[in-house]
Amino acid sequence: MPRLLATQSHVVHGYVGNKAATFPLQCLGWDVDCCNSVQFSNHTGYGLDKVFGTITRETDLKELLSGLFDNFSQDYQALLSGYLPNKNSVRCMGTYYAKFKEANPEMIWLMDPVMGDEGQLYVSEDVIPEYRKLALSPKQLVDIITPNQFELEILYGGEIKTKEHLKKALKKLHQTIPVIIVTSCDCKMFDDKDFIYCVASMEGKTPIVYRVPFIDSYFTGVGDLFSALLLDRVYKILSNPTTTLKFEDQVNNVLNVIQKVLKITRSYASGKMKAKMGSALEMKEMELRLIESRDIYETINIHQTDYIYARL
Amino acid sequence: MPRLLATQSHVVHGYVGNKAATFPLQCLGWDVDCCNSVQFSNHTGYGLDKVFGTITRETDLKELLSGLFDNFSQDYQALLSGYLPNKNSVRCMGTYYAKFKEANPEMIWLMDPVMGDEGQLYVSEDVIPEYRKLALSPKQLVDIITPNQFELEILYGGEIKTKEHLKKALKKLHQTIPVIIVTSCDCKMFDDKDFIYCVASMEGKTPIVYRVPFIDSYFTGVGDLFSALLLDRVYKILSNPTTTLKFEDQVNNVLNVIQKVLKITRSYASGKMKAKMGSALEMKEMELRLIESRDIYETINIHQTDYIYARL
Repeated sequence: MPRLLATQSHVVHGYVGNKAATFPLQCLGWDVDCCNSVQFSNHTGYGLDKVFGTITRETDLKELLSGLFDNFSQDYQALLSGYLPNKNSVRCMGTYYAKFKEANPEMIWLMDPVMGDEGQLYVSEDVIPEYRKLALSPKQLVDIITPNQFELEILYGGEIKTKEHLKKALKKLHQTIPVIIVTSCDCKMFDDKDFIYCVASMEGKTPIVYRVPFIDSYFTGVGDLFSALLLDRVYKILSNPTTTLKFEDQVNNVLNVIQKVLKITRSYASGKMKAKMGSALEMKEMELRLIESRDIYETINIHQTDYIYARL
Repeated sequence: MPRLLATQSHVVHGYVGNKAATFPLQCLGWDVDCCNSVQFSNHTGYGLDKVFGTITRETDLKELLSGLFDNFSQDYQALLSGYLPNKNSVRCMGTYYAKFKEANPEMIWLMDPVMGDEGQLYVSEDVIPEYRKLALSPKQLVDIITPNQFELEILYGGEIKTKEHLKKALKKLHQTIPVIIVTSCDCKMFDDKDFIYCVASMEGKTPIVYRVPFIDSYFTGVGDLFSALLLDRVYKILSNPTTTLKFEDQVNNVLNVIQKVLKITRSYASGKMKAKMGSALEMKEMELRLIESRDIYETINIHQTDYIYARL
């Protein structure tokens, strides 16, 4: 069985961060070792006065990751990192993940550089250079990144307004990162409020544009679920040189699973409401229905729609 | 979908505490909200110099449980508590679980009063009165307990050397607790090194003795898995007055699942070794194979052996 180390947030109630990633990956046969960067009662969309719990202290996170490296440096096939609360936690994760990668270069590291969305940072500014260092490291530490367009611009270091800009950004980042998935692309040429555009690019190949229907609700944890499933699907390619699995199909499959999870989630919400940030009741209704979706994580278990829209 | 709140330890690597309880319950359709009382790299059997991480501070645990009560007091069908590191954490869990129960008396609380085994305490002495208070509360807070014989003796307040002692102890504890499962009974009349004896007692009914083969290996987390599965099986009876499910069959089924998980676990261990405490390598080999066992948690998915041995 493959085993991965996942460092991101833990919420007691609901499904974001490690809570969103773990169960689907376990259903797919992964042993998921969760290193929790925070322990909160629920995600922050419930309203800041309704979030309880604590950030794992820097010294505690360091001791934990250091101990995991001492005991299990050869035990992981993959590394996953997602939301981390501040500069020190990103740096700490980066330091130890780099050690894991150096001890075992076969490991696949998926880094979701969680910094913000649609022009808004939701971490402190000083987190930016930490993610840039990891993404642009000449040691080629990271194998897969899953930024949204805003995060891609930050890593690239420039605005992306045209397809040419996008190609340039991907080309630059491919110097250090083999697989880049831009999870929601809002550059003008794709602008269409009924759809979300996603670009998947593997080093040396033509990037593929996917177009998926936009479901008008505020879901949280979708990105974390996406990264987890993507890691599984891409791992199956990168870890097996003789595989017949195709990258574009694997990404398409992840998008299918996500769409199905969102539909299942909405089917349980009373009145098909659109959840608003800060409304605890609505947030509760819109928690991803990951348990109810447990039969659809395997590729073979769902009917597939072809979301491929164009080549870049 | 039923939802439960589980307060016990979290390990990054391996399967004890919440890591042992969560995945099987999720496979059975439960939303499992994990409140982690510690975050350790692995369980303590690896050797104390190989355990890294921290105990959730008392103020942090209190804030978390208090916040969960504020946000989700009506959202749980069940409460689970297992290993807690000290007096304050037991008291804190007990205080808030009692509030949950009072706010919603339908909730089923399974408390595993983890204190020690075979005459040895592995928590501090001052934990004892905390568990006794909860177990013997005239408010009848706890619905199910899963002590081993040593823990039963502590809660009862006397030695248990004969079947009559055992009956007396069960009778006393049934004054406040409807369901008692003694997970490993070593009283002389059952003494037989090839078997483990387990006694399941529901208030007002004749206690049932189960006899299961003893597998000679040091597994960790078996008790935590047992409690989790038992909560699922007993919940299905207690929450449904018109059920045709029988208590004795439900317990028998849990024992079947456990035996199967242990067999699967041993089938993966190189050389069928018997793991020794303090040997990290052997402990790693003997971690429960909960992911590989994912198809057997549902009652219908396994062939059943009848482990019922006698009535008490």
